Amino acid sequence: MYKKILIIGCGLIGSSILRVAIKKKLSKKIFVFEKNKKYRNQIKKINKKIIIIKKLDKNIQEINFVVIATPMSEYKKIIPKLNIFLNNNALITDVGSTRNNVGKLIKEKLSKKLNWIMSHPIAGSEVSGPQYGNKNLFENKWCIIIKDKNKDKLKKVISFWKKTGSKIILMNSKEHDKIFSITSHLPHLIAYNLIKTAQDFQKKDKKNIIKFSAGGLRDFSRIAASNEIMWRDIFFNNKKNMISAINKFSKNLNSFKKNIQNLEDKNLRKKLVNSKKVREQIVQLKQDIAKPDFGRE
Amino acid sequence: MYKKILIIGCGLIGSSILRVAIKKKLSKKIFVFEKNKKYRNQIKKINKKIIIIKKLDKNIQEINFVVIATPMSEYKKIIPKLNIFLNNNALITDVGSTRNNVGKLIKEKLSKKLNWIMSHPIAGSEVSGPQYGNKNLFENKWCIIIKDKNKDKLKKVISFWKKTGSKIILMNSKEHDKIFSITSHLPHLIAYNLIKTAQDFQKKDKKNIIKFSAGGLRDFSRIAASNEIMWRDIFFNNKKNMISAINKFSKNLNSFKKNIQNLEDKNLRKKLVNSKKVREQIVQLKQDIAKPDFGRE
Repeated sequence: MYKKILIIGCGLIGSSILRVAIKKKLSKKIFVFEKNKKYRNQIKKINKKIIIIKKLDKNIQEINFVVIATPMSEYKKIIPKLNIFLNNNALITDVGSTRNNVGKLIKEKLSKKLNWIMSHPIAGSEVSGPQYGNKNLFENKWCIIIKDKNKDKLKKVISFWKKTGSKIILMNSKEHDKIFSITSHLPHLIAYNLIKTAQDFQKKDKKNIIKFSAGGLRDFSRIAASNEIMWRDIFFNNKKNMISAINKFSKNLNSFKKNIQNLEDKNLRKKLVNSKKVREQIVQLKQDIAKPDFGRE
Repeated sequence: MYKKILIIGCGLIGSSILRVAIKKKLSKKIFVFEKNKKYRNQIKKINKKIIIIKKLDKNIQEINFVVIATPMSEYKKIIPKLNIFLNNNALITDVGSTRNNVGKLIKEKLSKKLNWIMSHPIAGSEVSGPQYGNKNLFENKWCIIIKDKNKDKLKKVISFWKKTGSKIILMNSKEHDKIFSITSHLPHLIAYNLIKTAQDFQKKDKKNIIKFSAGGLRDFSRIAASNEIMWRDIFFNNKKNMISAINKFSKNLNSFKKNIQNLEDKNLRKKLVNSKKVREQIVQLKQDIAKPDFGRE
């Protein structure tokens, strides 16, 4: 248990950490810094003991543990303030979705007296804001923690996430960014791109096609409704892996196009059959349930 | 109410039609033709009154209404049998997902004495087979019916689908194939392609990335587990629209790639924000619910 935890950025993820910290009594006092006034009003209602601070100034001098859950593009503004006001013994973590660029930023900008161990809880949805936060959000979900030389501090961050209900995996930041470019960042970009393509079609043909979205488009629209600031930051931060993933995707799409153009039955069917295996793996690994989905109604 | 309905092909869709026909008493007798032995054994258990026929021969001479729910590639084999054994007054419909090529096939191969009005119920999921069929599958779902000069027969097909609970929309076959290339066929191909790209990555990097699929990949894997024969038929039958849709998609993806490559903040964010609007429309049109999806557990 910490004496004083500070959560910087209290949207969906930040407020879920806040809720689980209250429930599991992870800190005697919990401080929250959140720029959005509407969000602050919602947070106040969660629990009377939450201390909302308006500036990252001397109020944070005695904080033991800091969780940053803002969009990653905010880090540049936050780090100089941490450098000034945090004590040597304060431990920092964050929940950003890319790790290599953030690692570089920390190395460049964070005061050497401070320790920041990066985390990435694989939890969330298309919605944003503290009204959607949930104390059980991390229960049984993976939390990636980036390896660090400081084994003592690493242990503390692992222990914190375990208490939220997360299952822990250690990775280095390059490995993390490569894996998630495929399992998360590319799927989001593809969903955005598919929706954009449907919008272009609707505009040009002046037909209401959206009402027929139950045939497949619907599933992509959910992901493509995710927060634009968060996803811009991810795409830009993970630029190199994104470009590589897009190139691989485009190469495969051209091959599918050729299969269709030339009616290549055997090649096409082989690919379609193979992709079912991934679904089976996902269900076996408990990343989804086997129950068929006829639409959420 | 018909005297004798015949359902040819009794998987997910065929068996759902069977179930609703029994429940709503749409026919005095119901005949089923299904090639798959395992499926036939499952169908027998649905209701004792179902008459399973083993050949499309003289048994079908007195059928009034035929619903074909096989993969579209089977139609070539089925039509010559209908030509021989069906009476003049029999009305035919089917549930195929592309309409223009099927329309051509009917014009070429179906006996002029017979009437075939094409339908396309927008219902289903990633699973196949009669064990997943459901009498409520069509309830409140769109059913596209292809316009036909024979207004009398058209009315009868509309009336049939209305009784299943469907909401009816009339279209011509070209319009249908263009719209569904965007709302259904392209999304399926893209899902298959994304899963293929993830599989290639996993094979090359020998990393178990599938277990981190909750970050987005999971949602695509469900669609990419759909039946390969059905989808091969759709992609091949709707070739021209598919190629055009893939080209539009690729053009947009290249533009996204450029945005990321050059860190074009304003352009990228504008696109991401715009795509949220489609999600809002889909929810308003009751094609999905607004409730956020944190994963199906």
